Amino acid sequence: MIDFRSDTVTRPSDEMRDAARDAAVGDDVYADDPTVNELEARAADLAGFEDALYVPSGTMGNQIAIRTHTDRGQELLCDEQAHVYKWELGGIPQLSQVQPRILDCGDRCVPTPEQVREGYVEEDLHRPGTGLLCLENTHNSRGGVAVPKADIDEAAAAAHELDVPVHLDGARFLNACVALDTDPAAMTEHVDSVMFCLSKGLGAPVGSVLAGSEEFIERARRTRKLFGGAMRQAGMIAAPGLRALENVDRLAEDHANAARLAAGLNDIEGLSAPEPDTNIVMVDSEAAGLTGEELSAACKERDVKFHAFGEYTCRLCTHLDVDEGDVAEGLDRIESVVAEA
Amino acid sequence: MIDFRSDTVTRPSDEMRDAARDAAVGDDVYADDPTVNELEARAADLAGFEDALYVPSGTMGNQIAIRTHTDRGQELLCDEQAHVYKWELGGIPQLSQVQPRILDCGDRCVPTPEQVREGYVEEDLHRPGTGLLCLENTHNSRGGVAVPKADIDEAAAAAHELDVPVHLDGARFLNACVALDTDPAAMTEHVDSVMFCLSKGLGAPVGSVLAGSEEFIERARRTRKLFGGAMRQAGMIAAPGLRALENVDRLAEDHANAARLAAGLNDIEGLSAPEPDTNIVMVDSEAAGLTGEELSAACKERDVKFHAFGEYTCRLCTHLDVDEGDVAEGLDRIESVVAEA
Amino acid sequence: MIDFRSDTVTRPSDEMRDAARDAAVGDDVYADDPTVNELEARAADLAGFEDALYVPSGTMGNQIAIRTHTDRGQELLCDEQAHVYKWELGGIPQLSQVQPRILDCGDRCVPTPEQVREGYVEEDLHRPGTGLLCLENTHNSRGGVAVPKADIDEAAAAAHELDVPVHLDGARFLNACVALDTDPAAMTEHVDSVMFCLSKGLGAPVGSVLAGSEEFIERARRTRKLFGGAMRQAGMIAAPGLRALENVDRLAEDHANAARLAAGLNDIEGLSAPEPDTNIVMVDSEAAGLTGEELSAACKERDVKFHAFGEYTCRLCTHLDVDEGDVAEGLDRIESVVAEA
Amino acid sequence: MIDFRSDTVTRPSDEMRDAARDAAVGDDVYADDPTVNELEARAADLAGFEDALYVPSGTMGNQIAIRTHTDRGQELLCDEQAHVYKWELGGIPQLSQVQPRILDCGDRCVPTPEQVREGYVEEDLHRPGTGLLCLENTHNSRGGVAVPKADIDEAAAAAHELDVPVHLDGARFLNACVALDTDPAAMTEHVDSVMFCLSKGLGAPVGSVLAGSEEFIERARRTRKLFGGAMRQAGMIAAPGLRALENVDRLAEDHANAARLAAGLNDIEGLSAPEPDTNIVMVDSEAAGLTGEELSAACKERDVKFHAFGEYTCRLCTHLDVDEGDVAEGLDRIESVVAEA
Repeated sequence: MIDFRSDTVTRPSDEMRDAARDAAVGDDVYADDPTVNELEARAADLAGFEDALYVPSGTMGNQIAIRTHTDRGQELLCDEQAHVYKWELGGIPQLSQVQPRILDCGDRCVPTPEQVREGYVEEDLHRPGTGLLCLENTHNSRGGVAVPKADIDEAAAAAHELDVPVHLDGARFLNACVALDTDPAAMTEHVDSVMFCLSKGLGAPVGSVLAGSEEFIERARRTRKLFGGAMRQAGMIAAPGLRALENVDRLAEDHANAARLAAGLNDIEGLSAPEPDTNIVMVDSEAAGLTGEELSAACKERDVKFHAFGEYTCRLCTHLDVDEGDVAEGLDRIESVVAEA
Repeated sequence: MIDFRSDTVTRPSDEMRDAARDAAVGDDVYADDPTVNELEARAADLAGFEDALYVPSGTMGNQIAIRTHTDRGQELLCDEQAHVYKWELGGIPQLSQVQPRILDCGDRCVPTPEQVREGYVEEDLHRPGTGLLCLENTHNSRGGVAVPKADIDEAAAAAHELDVPVHLDGARFLNACVALDTDPAAMTEHVDSVMFCLSKGLGAPVGSVLAGSEEFIERARRTRKLFGGAMRQAGMIAAPGLRALENVDRLAEDHANAARLAAGLNDIEGLSAPEPDTNIVMVDSEAAGLTGEELSAACKERDVKFHAFGEYTCRLCTHLDVDEGDVAEGLDRIESVVAEA
Repeated sequence: MIDFRSDTVTRPSDEMRDAARDAAVGDDVYADDPTVNELEARAADLAGFEDALYVPSGTMGNQIAIRTHTDRGQELLCDEQAHVYKWELGGIPQLSQVQPRILDCGDRCVPTPEQVREGYVEEDLHRPGTGLLCLENTHNSRGGVAVPKADIDEAAAAAHELDVPVHLDGARFLNACVALDTDPAAMTEHVDSVMFCLSKGLGAPVGSVLAGSEEFIERARRTRKLFGGAMRQAGMIAAPGLRALENVDRLAEDHANAARLAAGLNDIEGLSAPEPDTNIVMVDSEAAGLTGEELSAACKERDVKFHAFGEYTCRLCTHLDVDEGDVAEGLDRIESVVAEA
Repeated sequence: MIDFRSDTVTRPSDEMRDAARDAAVGDDVYADDPTVNELEARAADLAGFEDALYVPSGTMGNQIAIRTHTDRGQELLCDEQAHVYKWELGGIPQLSQVQPRILDCGDRCVPTPEQVREGYVEEDLHRPGTGLLCLENTHNSRGGVAVPKADIDEAAAAAHELDVPVHLDGARFLNACVALDTDPAAMTEHVDSVMFCLSKGLGAPVGSVLAGSEEFIERARRTRKLFGGAMRQAGMIAAPGLRALENVDRLAEDHANAARLAAGLNDIEGLSAPEPDTNIVMVDSEAAGLTGEELSAACKERDVKFHAFGEYTCRLCTHLDVDEGDVAEGLDRIESVVAEA
């Protein structure tokens, strides 16, 4: 089985498993868990913030950030393909009573300063004010695009001029930093909070981190309790998370494998795949006469798994449980599926 | 003073005032007000529905409809310029915990069937399902466009195939019917509810009507109570509302005045205004070197009032308190403002 | 027909009807309605506040106050029989995301300072903080009790020491002031906002007023728009509301009639009714072997209307549409109903 | 250090740590984690339900249940000391738009059938209907009371007659079953869902389980995603959770230690502690002239930790990290603190 469905499927390494077994733990609801505390300190440091909070999922990290930055009844500016808007079950209105205002950011993935200004709504008698700008890097639905620091900075500066705070959904934030060779703390220099996942390419079994100012994290801690995300001896899963932070440089391998995968897919008659920035490959199968659903279903029968993502599009992810050999073998099987169609 | 700000500024006629004084009333919370009951019955009949509900404002009528049609956590499909999304203070997430999913409907103002299908979200583990399609006719922010029945029908049919109900925000619904010479009940043939205002071009002092099936209106009545819209001896304002229903044909005069106004604006060097469908005129002042704010401010000094609506755009409304002479006089004053600039 | 159901059933007088017909009006959404502006100014003055807001119902006035005073996620302290908690369709959680914390205030109707302190919750990791204390005067569900200024003052002082603002649900606030011979502005001396109805004993057809500081009312105006309570030429119903403010002294007649009614009910074998403070009479029919539902149903057949309010309790209201003769006649009919049972 | 603060502070055993290291895992968001699947199956079986869901905390389990059982705008009936109402940050209104209706259940801890019927609200024009009855066993804030099956059954039967579903907050549910020698599946015979914690007396590091019908759990899974509680390779913490299920019988030791602790506290001049049902001891220190805060602060200086729970009350918990010797030592230190005061 070759599993390109998502980098979330990665299994913990033996080092991570040993770390879990041996973790020093305490009750994290009382902030007594030394391993969680260490993870939060290191993650804050890595991302260039004063403090951080360990949360059970990226979705929770984003939704906590949204609620902590806003008041009920405000608007949140984001791209129409943003994960927070599209894939988080309507958490924005449901958990924060906030209305998304949608921008089409196209290939740039984050809004231009002009788009920020146009999307901005000043609070008045008829309109909620804008309470948050939410960016995403890498941008998942647009193909794992690594957004350069300059674009993040520009969008954030435009928001700050309007007194609007900025949250970065960085589920695959470190993939962006590695791909662009940008220091993580530099990448977040002008945003007010970042969420990044330990459980994707970094390979931890569970968890994400939300980083921000000390005051922000203190309020976020309360929202985590409200959402039911406060755990007890969480050091057992924070320990593999700490190991995961050592996997940052290794993400380059996933990117190289994704490049190989895209090149190989392009070589298959009927398929086309743009060169990926990071570990996500989008492949178009229209010329092969196959819908995304058909292609993914047929490959699944050959033990190659990935998701359809649009009518004629599929998304494939590389991660630490697929190596160069898996990529080659996967391409062979996909090629034969397409040939038979 | 010539007031083009909105058709909401219209003053009640003497007949309306007399009707208010002489209204038979009762406690409408107990459904004991005969005048309200008559208004609801007549409005339901006019709009082609089983029942109707009198509400203090168009915003309340729309928000009641949204909440009554949906469950918390669903999505609502609408145009990015829809009034319910842009001008109702984030009521969609705040009052119904619903997430707007935004379409760019362009000049068509309502989505194509394909847009409905693309915007539709099937309920699954990651995504809220689509709970409502919201259309608008005439379309306010796009210039009072009268949307033909065929376009409404097509969008509604696409939604119904997906088991999604359809609400029509018809704040100026009767303007659309008059402009297109379509029977109101035919216009709503394929939608599940319509809200229309008595207090705009029809000239009533207060109130709007939400119409739908008997079962829908029964539930809507309860939502009206929740929102604080249940009034007591409301017959006093429902009576002028009944008179307002006699003003439907008169809307053609407003449309003719709007056509005169647009033509006159086009004749002014530096201004351009597309031919209006109904009683809303959008004028572009960029060529005159005036922003919308500058033009509206300068005209206000000459006792001609209207609102800026974009950087170089203003919106002017005709209604029963501006006649042909007012249009001519208004054009003279606007022309001299532009000439001086 | 003698209608003791509620003082909400009162019909507008000829003076009110004439006032509606002759009202100077404008678009109140633009704050252009002189009659509404006058009503708001007079009501603010009467209640001893800087500013006021005209709203379509008492429920809306209360819910606007709750939302304007609180942040989402806070608690609201109130009596277990409070109207805002029991009879407003769960508006507290639904419109404000606020949790009621319930006190049993018994015959006192408002909490003692000690109850306020015990019910108060300090914001911490596990608990929402207390955001509002809500009092009610007269207290409807406890029998139209007029709560003395001293009790209001004490509860408010206890709340303010904890930095908790205080709203007074004064649907029948002026009944309390008249019954206790207390100046309305003195009664509200230590609360932060008051809502009172024009449409109950004062006899206006529609509407209530929310009064508070200038800054509070400015924010409340926005919440009114969100809830759909902003109306256009509302002067037509505000004008009778202005006349209603002249009816304050007349409330003493309703109180005298209620005292007669209670005395008469006590004289009927099998019924008992405590002496009322204001215009609400609670009658117990257990000794007559009649449930509240049975008594009210049987009386309705004799054209005497009132509501069951508990298993063996009914509530009867006096108001300007029942005079001394109606009370005598009503008592006769009730007596014969009980005699036959 | 002797830590009586809560049974949440328990550290995982070596067996649990090994189980974490060796866990078979998969992506639980895709339901691919065999260890989580096994835990859910076993927990469902133990609690007598068709299916179960692993969640990061008891708070999340309860709030998911509340949201899954109700519609927005309904009421939830519960005791005034219920954890869901008092200690979950207002999640009921905030996450479910539901209004708590509060009963005083006193020492019985769960409502009588009559209380259920009196608290029940039929949906009508003015009132939200009752959507859920929430019980708690053992009852935390009332002193770890083990509620007999008969009382649970009676309350549930009364609710079901009114078509109201019943959720059991069983954070310490298995303590109740052990104390009363009742089979867990018998204890839940008449409720519709139960939540119980693996991370309290059972000693697992993280997590709780929500059990119910297959259809209920399917919908609950979606709410878990919305709240951000869906985790990836959660088998790493589910594995110790499976070991925790083997600790059920061991809870009797905690109860015996709690009995010893209470008896010892009673022997200290100035302190009194009722005999505990399970592992929670409430001690009153008024006669010693010490507030709860003073007693807990002074004991903390002697390395005995517990929480103040009321003005003159403290709560002490026994659990697998305090043995008979710790209880004796703890009592000595508390005695000397009281003696000095």
